[in-house]
Amino acid sequence: MAGESTSIVILGATGDLARRKLLPALFQLACKERLPRGLRIIGFSRPEYTDEAYRELMWEGMQEFTDLAVRKDRWTVFSQALSYLGGDFGAPKDFTRLRQRLEQMEGTEGKANRLFYLSIAPRFFAIAVKNLGASGLAAEDTGWRRVVIEKPFGRDLESARALNRDVHAVFDERQVYRIDHYLGKETVQNLLVFRFANGIFEPLWDRNCVDNVQITAAEKVSVGDRAGYYDQSGVVRDMVQNHLLQLLTMVAMEPPVSLDADSLRNRKVEVLQSIRRWTPDEATHGTVLGQYDGYLGEADVAADSATPTYAAFRLHVDNWRWQGVPFYLRTGKAMADKATEIVIEFRRPPHLMFPMSPGEDLTPNILSLCLQPDEGFHLRFEVKVPDQGMTLRSKDMAFHYESAFRDQAIPEAYERLLQDALEGDPSLFIRSDHIEEGWRIVDPLLQGTENGAQRPQIYEPGSWGPEAADSLLAEDGRTWHRVCGVHGDVDA
Amino acid sequence: MAGESTSIVILGATGDLARRKLLPALFQLACKERLPRGLRIIGFSRPEYTDEAYRELMWEGMQEFTDLAVRKDRWTVFSQALSYLGGDFGAPKDFTRLRQRLEQMEGTEGKANRLFYLSIAPRFFAIAVKNLGASGLAAEDTGWRRVVIEKPFGRDLESARALNRDVHAVFDERQVYRIDHYLGKETVQNLLVFRFANGIFEPLWDRNCVDNVQITAAEKVSVGDRAGYYDQSGVVRDMVQNHLLQLLTMVAMEPPVSLDADSLRNRKVEVLQSIRRWTPDEATHGTVLGQYDGYLGEADVAADSATPTYAAFRLHVDNWRWQGVPFYLRTGKAMADKATEIVIEFRRPPHLMFPMSPGEDLTPNILSLCLQPDEGFHLRFEVKVPDQGMTLRSKDMAFHYESAFRDQAIPEAYERLLQDALEGDPSLFIRSDHIEEGWRIVDPLLQGTENGAQRPQIYEPGSWGPEAADSLLAEDGRTWHRVCGVHGDVDA
Repeated sequence: MAGESTSIVILGATGDLARRKLLPALFQLACKERLPRGLRIIGFSRPEYTDEAYRELMWEGMQEFTDLAVRKDRWTVFSQALSYLGGDFGAPKDFTRLRQRLEQMEGTEGKANRLFYLSIAPRFFAIAVKNLGASGLAAEDTGWRRVVIEKPFGRDLESARALNRDVHAVFDERQVYRIDHYLGKETVQNLLVFRFANGIFEPLWDRNCVDNVQITAAEKVSVGDRAGYYDQSGVVRDMVQNHLLQLLTMVAMEPPVSLDADSLRNRKVEVLQSIRRWTPDEATHGTVLGQYDGYLGEADVAADSATPTYAAFRLHVDNWRWQGVPFYLRTGKAMADKATEIVIEFRRPPHLMFPMSPGEDLTPNILSLCLQPDEGFHLRFEVKVPDQGMTLRSKDMAFHYESAFRDQAIPEAYERLLQDALEGDPSLFIRSDHIEEGWRIVDPLLQGTENGAQRPQIYEPGSWGPEAADSLLAEDGRTWHRVCGVHGDVDA
Repeated sequence: MAGESTSIVILGATGDLARRKLLPALFQLACKERLPRGLRIIGFSRPEYTDEAYRELMWEGMQEFTDLAVRKDRWTVFSQALSYLGGDFGAPKDFTRLRQRLEQMEGTEGKANRLFYLSIAPRFFAIAVKNLGASGLAAEDTGWRRVVIEKPFGRDLESARALNRDVHAVFDERQVYRIDHYLGKETVQNLLVFRFANGIFEPLWDRNCVDNVQITAAEKVSVGDRAGYYDQSGVVRDMVQNHLLQLLTMVAMEPPVSLDADSLRNRKVEVLQSIRRWTPDEATHGTVLGQYDGYLGEADVAADSATPTYAAFRLHVDNWRWQGVPFYLRTGKAMADKATEIVIEFRRPPHLMFPMSPGEDLTPNILSLCLQPDEGFHLRFEVKVPDQGMTLRSKDMAFHYESAFRDQAIPEAYERLLQDALEGDPSLFIRSDHIEEGWRIVDPLLQGTENGAQRPQIYEPGSWGPEAADSLLAEDGRTWHRVCGVHGDVDA
């Protein structure tokens, strides 16, 4: 084919992620006409399928996991771009076959770009990358080459560094797209807009006005059929090192010069670099780890497992902007509710001129940035109760995307991320230094759990975690806040 | 009667204000059990009525103008406190009769307080006060004496000063309660709460963050049956000198030490003192006066009347906080809509990092404090349009009292003000220096109209006033904003 063509090779093409997320996202992008012209998608995985059988498998996924199946006619056209090759991630000869197949499809004229998507078990990341290199598939001879690597990227600082070394032996950092699908969510991107497209928030966004920041990512579900994987990783790897720290960097970062990938990612890494490091002792005694009652009875969980399913802790961002403002983070499984929420608690007004009972003080204002369940913002402030002198009450102003943009479907995170990867914009992907800083922060916590220094506290499923998480804030004279979706959430 | 008793004497007891507002407010306060025990209300006016006939007249008003008539049984009890005395505001002997009547009701034991409410035509203010003094009614021999004086207080600086002198010949300033019912409105008081009970607004409330402030008080009605009075006063006396400047002081004032009357009123007077004065030329050429088409045909309006029914102008508050931030004010009759709204337009973000078309800039944030028609707040900010890269759109968060306090009726302004006057709290009344500063500001504007230097521009009824009002802001590169109740008002 003359001109330019692009191939996406999905390694792990028959897995859950490919069926539930990747193919649906690519199909959506095709329907929106956002894919490059002449795009090919090649599935590569252990099982043997014909092209036709693979298309059928993906169509079944589309019907089972999405509501895209209504567009059967478009699928019929789209799926012509889909083909399949059986192969082993560890077998160099299979990668040579993959190269031959690709070259054959690409022809010899024009540019031929290749995006490799590693939708495979983490233990295959290194060997697959090595084979991409050894087979010549990664050579930028006929067009660009990029690799998307799914999480988890490493199990700790040491393994992440080793993996980075392996990846960099084949790909330059500019070619590497480490994915954290959180970053593809509309609300996460909206945090940037919220902070930097509005004049009124940034002046409040520092130690002078903010008392503390709380980040909650609570899941109602228990580990379920992921228990086998989960028991090997635990909450710190599953949620803290990636999602929670991502949210923290978005909230705490300095304004970037522009939204290009390195401006943005430099500012984010700087936040991670500013986070005060735990000593092993602080990591053990200053943090709360929990395990929900019943976890030990889940299938594939070791009978004496000390894997935490809940974590709550306090971080300090030691820089000019945030000195003295604690960041409280918590996340867990089998919690009372599904909620991802960033709460900015502002300082109280400096001077009290309203009549109060002795010991009473003004209620601080709260800004809640809600990612789940109902994406939007809440601003909690004090108003006068009508007809009652100067009696005050807290009320909320609220903004919810879904009601504000009724005509606009919120896209899946993978849609945006795949499009960005195809367009060569790594802004919403994790750079190698970010990954390593993240591990450097949580490593002391992991070591404490894994060397037996800290056993998780048992908490009731359907609760908000161990009581110690409340004590953690109570020590500082504070409490956890929830705004979105709870009592007092006034949409008026 | 032993102990303490209080009498309210309403001068002008048969007038519109007494029937529509004062008696209903007093009755409401009685129903809420907020009146002092053993309160008497004595009507005093030219016509002759028996006590019973006066009660009947007031009951008719209650039925005609309020929905309080459902409480007939309570009225029957309440109205026993009501009595009436016919008399002339200019006749000393009638005041002597009033004193005798009062003394007879008060008896000789205990404290007997008196509140005189001047609900009379302004031309009688001076003589009525003089007669209150001369008759001995104002002497603080048996209890406190206070006088509530309705607006307008003077027609210009000179007459206001003269009236202040006359009032002060009889009453100390601490006994004088000059009323502007705007100050009794819940939302106006709420401005204080909004600004000073919340930590997040005050840091934004200055020249660093605010681009300009706009205050609109638009009435849909024309002058109607008030035309005779209105033609003698005009919009500057009717709305600007009192209501608009009041709202401006509430927005612009420094935080008071406390909410006691003098702390609060000192801060408000300081704002008026900081307002840059117009030269006669600036008053003539830098302001927009309008008269709605058809005004000259209203009954009792002079055929060649140059009385303005609309005013729009720019004020500068020359102090540390507001230097360089223009305050745009406008008010008029026969406008497109009924709306009283304070709009704070914030500065744009200092740095543009989002993709924009050439010449395009970010939309500034807006805070709208709406007093009418739907009391509440709006915060307009920029959000990301879902699924469209970094396309931005303005959306509103909204808070409305009525929906937030469904169970709580918003009281009439007079209720609060009468209660405050009875309790001796003049915070929400106008001090003499405030009145005079207000006139000092608008006098050049009045002189321009009245010496023929400026004729009002004719505008269409149902419009937003003369086009020159738009040009006034366009000169500064700005436009008038409306938020509450209009398109884009998102309650979501």
